[in-house]
Amino acid sequence: MEIEFRSDVDVELVKSSASDSDVVFAARVSTQGERTRETTEDTESALFGLINFLMRERHGSPFEHSVMTFYVRAPIFVWREHMRHRMASYNEESGRYRVLNPVFYVPNDERKLVQIGKAGAYTFELGDQQQHQITDQAFKESCKQAYEQYEKMLAAGVAREVARGVLPVTTYSSAYVTMNARAMMNFLSLRRGVEGSHFPSYPQREIEMVAEKYEEVFQKLMPQTHKAFIGNGRVAP
Amino acid sequence: MEIEFRSDVDVELVKSSASDSDVVFAARVSTQGERTRETTEDTESALFGLINFLMRERHGSPFEHSVMTFYVRAPIFVWREHMRHRMASYNEESGRYRVLNPVFYVPNDERKLVQIGKAGAYTFELGDQQQHQITDQAFKESCKQAYEQYEKMLAAGVAREVARGVLPVTTYSSAYVTMNARAMMNFLSLRRGVEGSHFPSYPQREIEMVAEKYEEVFQKLMPQTHKAFIGNGRVAP
Amino acid sequence: MEIEFRSDVDVELVKSSASDSDVVFAARVSTQGERTRETTEDTESALFGLINFLMRERHGSPFEHSVMTFYVRAPIFVWREHMRHRMASYNEESGRYRVLNPVFYVPNDERKLVQIGKAGAYTFELGDQQQHQITDQAFKESCKQAYEQYEKMLAAGVAREVARGVLPVTTYSSAYVTMNARAMMNFLSLRRGVEGSHFPSYPQREIEMVAEKYEEVFQKLMPQTHKAFIGNGRVAP
Amino acid sequence: MEIEFRSDVDVELVKSSASDSDVVFAARVSTQGERTRETTEDTESALFGLINFLMRERHGSPFEHSVMTFYVRAPIFVWREHMRHRMASYNEESGRYRVLNPVFYVPNDERKLVQIGKAGAYTFELGDQQQHQITDQAFKESCKQAYEQYEKMLAAGVAREVARGVLPVTTYSSAYVTMNARAMMNFLSLRRGVEGSHFPSYPQREIEMVAEKYEEVFQKLMPQTHKAFIGNGRVAP
Repeated sequence: MEIEFRSDVDVELVKSSASDSDVVFAARVSTQGERTRETTEDTESALFGLINFLMRERHGSPFEHSVMTFYVRAPIFVWREHMRHRMASYNEESGRYRVLNPVFYVPNDERKLVQIGKAGAYTFELGDQQQHQITDQAFKESCKQAYEQYEKMLAAGVAREVARGVLPVTTYSSAYVTMNARAMMNFLSLRRGVEGSHFPSYPQREIEMVAEKYEEVFQKLMPQTHKAFIGNGRVAP
Repeated sequence: MEIEFRSDVDVELVKSSASDSDVVFAARVSTQGERTRETTEDTESALFGLINFLMRERHGSPFEHSVMTFYVRAPIFVWREHMRHRMASYNEESGRYRVLNPVFYVPNDERKLVQIGKAGAYTFELGDQQQHQITDQAFKESCKQAYEQYEKMLAAGVAREVARGVLPVTTYSSAYVTMNARAMMNFLSLRRGVEGSHFPSYPQREIEMVAEKYEEVFQKLMPQTHKAFIGNGRVAP
Repeated sequence: MEIEFRSDVDVELVKSSASDSDVVFAARVSTQGERTRETTEDTESALFGLINFLMRERHGSPFEHSVMTFYVRAPIFVWREHMRHRMASYNEESGRYRVLNPVFYVPNDERKLVQIGKAGAYTFELGDQQQHQITDQAFKESCKQAYEQYEKMLAAGVAREVARGVLPVTTYSSAYVTMNARAMMNFLSLRRGVEGSHFPSYPQREIEMVAEKYEEVFQKLMPQTHKAFIGNGRVAP
Repeated sequence: MEIEFRSDVDVELVKSSASDSDVVFAARVSTQGERTRETTEDTESALFGLINFLMRERHGSPFEHSVMTFYVRAPIFVWREHMRHRMASYNEESGRYRVLNPVFYVPNDERKLVQIGKAGAYTFELGDQQQHQITDQAFKESCKQAYEQYEKMLAAGVAREVARGVLPVTTYSSAYVTMNARAMMNFLSLRRGVEGSHFPSYPQREIEMVAEKYEEVFQKLMPQTHKAFIGNGRVAP
């Protein structure tokens, strides 16, 4: 199989049941009980008003009834971080059940390569040309070599689950991910480093690339919720 | 407010993103990775085949991407059991934020009133006429009296959250409940007592009434999944 | 059985595996890996330094390895709120398996009875003498009457699970509760209304009484963690 | 740094608050409520009797109050499977915060290398001498080469979090893992392939090696619980 090197991630919305009015309906059960269902159409500004109140007061549960399913393709080292989010559902490509493809993430020229500062207070800066060259070459050689060893073992009849041990964590893997809007905001608050966040976060760039794509979808599906999330300093309720 | 006595529960599907093919798409990521999305239409029997395999082998995660939201109205003692299911999202009517209505569950003539046998091996049988009469009267008098005391405190300016202390656990309360299909099957396996279940369960009748209504909806939305669930002895994967 | 009225809650530590150094050991795996286990004794101030960093930066996972188990006795309406905290383990007294005792919570003279202000901006104030008298009488009469109806049904051979329907939500129930330190801080941040909290909360007084007793134990077991929790505005990491 | 190849995993109990009597105390709250705490010493056979009942009837919650914390060192591909168990707490060594050591898992001669049969019905058999040789060589060459590229990037000033991309999933990583006894039994039921299990499982050998070591500890800490788990076909309650 031909080796492929990429520097981005794929995030596609597969399906969703997520809207601002779902949040409002769920929240209104508290105060209206059996009459919740009679509710008439709300204006955008009425939606925003209640949602903003919930966000500010950290009433998180009404956001749990809105759910999104994504197909995501990203390097294994991103999945390793992603799966630490336990409030989500995952089905991932399996190196036990299929031969993994030779598709590898390699940092491109925009990827900041150099870490400045001490533990707990890092910033990242672009590398110089040589650093980028060394990185590009190291990734490509190493991935190519590892995949050759993988294929050699497979050709000799060694089980996929054993042979895959040599593949690097920069190998792409794909998964279905389902998350509700509350978990989504938790993910976004931790996995994007946005100026003006109430609690600053320092995500690795590659998982942030996933988070950015999630956020675009989230904003489209639930614009008032997203607006209130931003307005309240990106603190997950 | 006029007192109302009822003997049933309300379960309405509010929205869903749940289907047999969602299960299959999610499961196929394991073996097909990036080609999952190319998948063409499956026949019902192909869906059943894979779903039945997943159910039998207890691969539960592909069922988590299908999600259902219900509006449910049931007595508080049912909610007390329902909320023990932690893999679900809830928003319930609040006795702090609103005056609770005088609507109370009272067992009707079909409710088996008498428990026969010793701990761990109970069966229930219909009561005699007198037992049903005593129960009916006890519920009605007690609820009526409690609600009068509730109203008396409210009239005196006592806070709702305090006054509601006297209301009985048979008072109806309503909530939004969101569950995925895996959690749903766990709920159904524990909250219905069906002959031929691989692991027998002995739910209280009133939560079983909720479970029965959930199951009707679940079966309509995900017929092959439901069929495989039944066929495998109602064991949640 | 003789009726008992109480105005407090019981919280006893049953067992624990919780300490500041557990937090530090777990956190150090990140940076020290296999050498984590060599760690020598830390001074209190070293413990506080790292723990405070974790708290401030919202690294919550190292707090999950410290676990506390409590025996708690509180009114049912408190349990209804408590069980909304899904990151905990519960075993509660069952009205299906035993005859519930006639022990009821009744607000005492210190309980603020009157709610002032509008939704989302309430304060509570002490009631006048008459309000306290009405409340005391309403609770006592109502509970007494409900318990008599309960006993009448039991005497007639009606099952416990049916008869308990008339018991009020102010009836005491007891449970084992196990929580880790991260869940504990989440509970404390939401269930205590403390001046100077970064995110203010407005818990019902009775669950706050449970939270106060939890916090005493938590502070004793994990003093540096508690200090950092307070110092960072009672925001759960 | 000198490269190290290993073929085993480390599992050490760090601390625990776990015993058979904890299970029994928690379960007795259901039936004895406030009198739970008076309970006198139980004989082993009394413990087993109640625990076996709970296991058989699938009352899982009393097992949640017993908690174990482990230090585990295993290859990344094992962690990838381990972290799918969401009912656990993890702190893992970070390739962002430290330079990862050149310690790699390589299958030894006892590792069955060859997968026989079709999807869903595999068995594994020992490879022939040549297959073992190819595997050994492929792993060693590939790991050595990857680590050299890793070091080359680090030497050029490239950030650890970038450079680690080339490291293979067979690299060892260590973590603290905290699990309660219910989650433990779920893990053991899925991650060991034991004859006579009620629901057969087909774990990858390397995570099974972790599971075997967990099970030894679990059996020592909670012998009656373990006995009941085995006796009921290794079905997690």
